[in-house]
Amino acid sequence: MRKLIQSVLPVAAAGCVLAATSSVAAPVGQRPAITIPPGAAFSMASIPTFKGEYKDVYAYIDAHKDSDLANLQRWVRQPSISAQNIGVKEMAALAAADLKKIGFKEAEVVPTGGHPGVWGYYDAGAKTTLAVYMMLDVQPVEEADWQVKPFDGALVDHPLGRVLMARGATNTKGPERAFLNAIEAIIATRGKLPVNLMILAESEEELGSPHYPELIAKFASRLKTAAGAIYPGGGQAPEDGAVSVQLGVKGLLYVELEARGNPRTGGPQKAEIHSSWKATTDAPAWRLTQALASLTTPDGNTILIPGYYDKIRQPNAEEQRLFNGTLDGWVKREAATRKAFAVDHWYDNMDARTSLTRYLFDTTINIDGLASGYGGPGTKTILPNRALAKLDSRLVPGQTPEESLRLLKAHLVNKGFGDIEVRQLAGYPPSQTSVEAPVVKALLSTYKKYGLPVDVSPRSGGSQPNYVFTDTLGVAEVGLAAGHGADAHAPNEYWLIDPKPGSKLFGMSAVEKFYVDALYAMAAAK
Amino acid sequence: MRKLIQSVLPVAAAGCVLAATSSVAAPVGQRPAITIPPGAAFSMASIPTFKGEYKDVYAYIDAHKDSDLANLQRWVRQPSISAQNIGVKEMAALAAADLKKIGFKEAEVVPTGGHPGVWGYYDAGAKTTLAVYMMLDVQPVEEADWQVKPFDGALVDHPLGRVLMARGATNTKGPERAFLNAIEAIIATRGKLPVNLMILAESEEELGSPHYPELIAKFASRLKTAAGAIYPGGGQAPEDGAVSVQLGVKGLLYVELEARGNPRTGGPQKAEIHSSWKATTDAPAWRLTQALASLTTPDGNTILIPGYYDKIRQPNAEEQRLFNGTLDGWVKREAATRKAFAVDHWYDNMDARTSLTRYLFDTTINIDGLASGYGGPGTKTILPNRALAKLDSRLVPGQTPEESLRLLKAHLVNKGFGDIEVRQLAGYPPSQTSVEAPVVKALLSTYKKYGLPVDVSPRSGGSQPNYVFTDTLGVAEVGLAAGHGADAHAPNEYWLIDPKPGSKLFGMSAVEKFYVDALYAMAAAK
Repeated sequence: MRKLIQSVLPVAAAGCVLAATSSVAAPVGQRPAITIPPGAAFSMASIPTFKGEYKDVYAYIDAHKDSDLANLQRWVRQPSISAQNIGVKEMAALAAADLKKIGFKEAEVVPTGGHPGVWGYYDAGAKTTLAVYMMLDVQPVEEADWQVKPFDGALVDHPLGRVLMARGATNTKGPERAFLNAIEAIIATRGKLPVNLMILAESEEELGSPHYPELIAKFASRLKTAAGAIYPGGGQAPEDGAVSVQLGVKGLLYVELEARGNPRTGGPQKAEIHSSWKATTDAPAWRLTQALASLTTPDGNTILIPGYYDKIRQPNAEEQRLFNGTLDGWVKREAATRKAFAVDHWYDNMDARTSLTRYLFDTTINIDGLASGYGGPGTKTILPNRALAKLDSRLVPGQTPEESLRLLKAHLVNKGFGDIEVRQLAGYPPSQTSVEAPVVKALLSTYKKYGLPVDVSPRSGGSQPNYVFTDTLGVAEVGLAAGHGADAHAPNEYWLIDPKPGSKLFGMSAVEKFYVDALYAMAAAK
Repeated sequence: MRKLIQSVLPVAAAGCVLAATSSVAAPVGQRPAITIPPGAAFSMASIPTFKGEYKDVYAYIDAHKDSDLANLQRWVRQPSISAQNIGVKEMAALAAADLKKIGFKEAEVVPTGGHPGVWGYYDAGAKTTLAVYMMLDVQPVEEADWQVKPFDGALVDHPLGRVLMARGATNTKGPERAFLNAIEAIIATRGKLPVNLMILAESEEELGSPHYPELIAKFASRLKTAAGAIYPGGGQAPEDGAVSVQLGVKGLLYVELEARGNPRTGGPQKAEIHSSWKATTDAPAWRLTQALASLTTPDGNTILIPGYYDKIRQPNAEEQRLFNGTLDGWVKREAATRKAFAVDHWYDNMDARTSLTRYLFDTTINIDGLASGYGGPGTKTILPNRALAKLDSRLVPGQTPEESLRLLKAHLVNKGFGDIEVRQLAGYPPSQTSVEAPVVKALLSTYKKYGLPVDVSPRSGGSQPNYVFTDTLGVAEVGLAAGHGADAHAPNEYWLIDPKPGSKLFGMSAVEKFYVDALYAMAAAK
C-alpha cells in the first residue's frame, strides 16, 4: 500500500517515546473532541543546512549517466508481476546478482511462504548501519492502454522532460536502481560507503506485503542494530518541486461483515429464494443493513461502538507543533483538494483547520463495499441468502487492531447481531515517530541544502505496515522523496530522467547525487 | 414474471366486487394483525363435475399426434429471445400465419413501442367470447450448459417420460401451440369452436411486459366483451398430478434507492476517493445504509414507514373461506417448502397457520440487491461515490404502488434522507377475483372431471400484472394448468409429451383434450 501515500517519510527514532497525553474519550454518540491550541509551530528554520559536498562522486555520476540509465532499463525490462507470478523469481535473482556485483558481502534470494525476498549486507566497517526497504514487484498491465510496450524500457518525450516510461519506472524500480547507482558511484570514487547497509527487499508489496513480517523476523536481530530504515521512492510535486514528509501512518483494521441465512436467525441457507417469501422469511440483507447502521449515527460520521474512541490520546506537544507548522499549507491546498475529489464540503461543513485535525488525529469506519443479490440493470425479485460489507477503520495512536476488532464484535453481539460473521482481512497498528530522530533531521537538512520546499506533517491519514520497522524493530523507516514520477498503477507509468530546463524537479542524476548526500548526512547524524 | 408462480389461475369476475372489511392498521413498529377465524372452508365438493364428452374430437387428437408434435417443434425451433432481439419478429409472423391458417378472421402482427404483439380474432358466432393471453418470447440460452441444442426441438427420454427439450418448451410455446392444436381438432370435427376467441400475444414477457398495457389499450373496447381471459401454461405437480389455483396476485412496487455524493449532503460526486478521507468526508454508502435501516425494525421484518400498513384490509369472508380450505394442504407442505429453501424456521418462529396468513395477506419490503464500491476478494480501501439498493414491495388489496411509493419517499424525507434518489422500476396493483366467477367454476369442474387434486388459494404471494385484465378491462384471466414441464429459465427446459405408464401427469394429447373440455365448459358457464 505504500504507493497510496505520496512522499511518505515516516520516521521513528528508536528509543524516542512520545509522551502520552490525555484521552479524547467522549460519550457514545459524540465524536472525540480533539483539541490543538494555536502556539509553537515546527519550522524548517530550526533545521541546519547540510554542508557536505562530494564533487568527485557527482562527477562520476555525470560521467556514467548512460550506464546508470541502462541499469534502470535493465530492471524495468524484467517483468515482475506478483499478482500473476510473472518474472518474480527472475527479478529477485537479478537484484541479488546486482548487489553481489556492487560489492555486498552477503547477497541472497530468501524464500518465504509466498514470493521470495532478497537480502543484502554491505559491510563498510562504519559506525552507522542503515536498513533499506525495497520492493521488487510491480502492478499488472493492460498493454492495450499503453503508448509504449510496458516492459520495453522506452524513453519518451513528456511535458515535464524526457522520461523512462515503463511498468515499475516510478513504483519503484527507477528510484531503487538509481539508489544502487549512487552507491556504485561512492564505492568507485571513495572506496567504500560511509555507512553499512542491510537491504531487505520483498516481491509482494502489490499484494499487501503478506510475508514481509516473515522476512523481518528472519533478520530481526541484525536489523535492530540499524540507525534507520530508508526507502527510495515517493517524489516531488510537479508544480514547485516540494516534498512532503509525514512522520507516521494510521493503522488499519479491515474486515468483512457477512450475513447469511442460518439456523439461529433464519433466512435461506443455500441460495437466493423468490422474494415473495419475504412475507415469512428472515432476510440476511436486512440483517446486514441493520447491523451496519448500528455502527454509526445517521449521518455515518460518528462511531457508536462503545469504547471505540476511548483510548485515542490527545495530540501530544510535538504533534501539536507539527500540526501548527503544516496548517498554513493545508489551508492553501484545502479547496483544491476538495475540488480534485469533487467534494462540495467536508462533513458538518467543517473548516480547514478542523478537517486537518480530523484527517490527522481521528479514527474512521468506512464502507469500502456492499454486495448482495442483484445489482444489475432492471428488476430481479430475489431474497438473497447472503450479504457482504467490506469495512476499513483507520487507527490512530492509542488504538490497536485487536482492541478495535474486539469492540466491534462485542457491539454487534450486544445489539443482537451476533449472527453476523466478522472476518479480519488486514490489521496492523499505527506507526509514529519523532521529528527529533537523527535520521529525520539528517534528511531534512539534505532537502534544505537543495532548497526544496518541505512540508512536515505529524502523519498521513493513510496506512502502511510501517510498524514492522518502528514497532517490531524499533528502527525508523525514512522515505527518500527526491525525483518525480506518476501513474504508478496506471498505463504509461513514468519516472523523470531529464527535466525540462528551469524545472525544479530532479532528474535521475540529480536524484543520485541527492542519495549520496543523504547517505553521508545520515552517517554523521546523532 | 408469469413463470415465477406455478399454476397461476387468478380470476376476477367482472362485476363481482369483494366487500371491503376493516383495516389491519397497527401502530408504527407493529406488524398488521391479520385475523382469520377458523370456520367455513372452501371445498371442491361444492363444484359439480363437468360431464361433457367429445369423443370425435379426442379421436382426431389421437390420430394427429405426430403433426401436433411437429407444430410444437416448429414453434420452439424459431428462436425468439426478446432480451437479445433474436428472432422475435419472425416468431410473431409465424404465430400470426398459424392463426390465419387455423381460421382466425383477423390475424395480424401489431407493432408496439417495443417488440411486436399478435392479435387474432376467431368469430364462431357464439354467445361467449374468451380472451387468450399468450407470450411468444423466450429466455436467453447458455448453449454450452444444454444436453441438446436449445433450438433443435429434440425429443429426449426423461425419468418422467418422453419430453420435448428446448428453450420455450414449457415457457410457453409447448402449452400454447397445444392449445392451438386443440382448436384445430374442434374445428376439423365440429366445424367451429363453441366460443369466440380474441388472442392477444406479446413478445416481451421476459422483459416484464412493458408494452402489454399498450396492446391491451389498443383492443380494450373489444376485449371488455370477453367472459374471461385464459392463459395456457403452468402445470401439474410431478408427485400426484395436482394443480394449484390461485385467485389473485400481489401487486408490486420495485424501486432503486441510490445515494451519491452531492452538494447538499456532501460526499465525492464524481468517483471513489481514497478511504483515508472518511475522516473528513460524508459517505454515500453510509447514507444509503442508514436510510435503508430506517425502513424496518432491526430484524428486518416490520416496516416502519408510517401508514404503510394502514389501508390493507382484513381478509374478507371469501378469502377466509379459501384460506381455511387451503390451510390443511399448506400444513402438510410447509416443512418441505422450508427444506427446499434451506430455511430453518420462518421469522419469529411462526407456525404454519401464521406463515400462510403472512404469505397471502401481508405486504413486504425486500432487499433484492445491494451494490457499492468493491465487493471482490481481499481488500480495497476506497470511499465509494455511490451506493445502490434494489427493493421490492409486494402489495396486497388496499395498497397501491402510487401510495406506497409516496409513503416511502415521505418517510425518507422526514428521516432526513431526502438526498436519497428513489427511482421506480416497476409498479402495478394487486389483482383479485372471486371463486364464484363462472369461468373459475367451469375450470374447476373440468379439473374435477379428470380427478386432478386441486388446491384453491385466495392468491399467490408473487406478482404479475394481471390487473390489465381484471382491473383495466374487468375481465378474469384464467390459467389452464394441465400438463407438466420444468426448467423454464434454465438449461434443458422441457415439456412432457408422453408420460411413463401409470403417471398422473398429462402428456401433450391429454392436455389438448383437457383444453377441448375447458373451452366447452366455459362456453356453457354462467
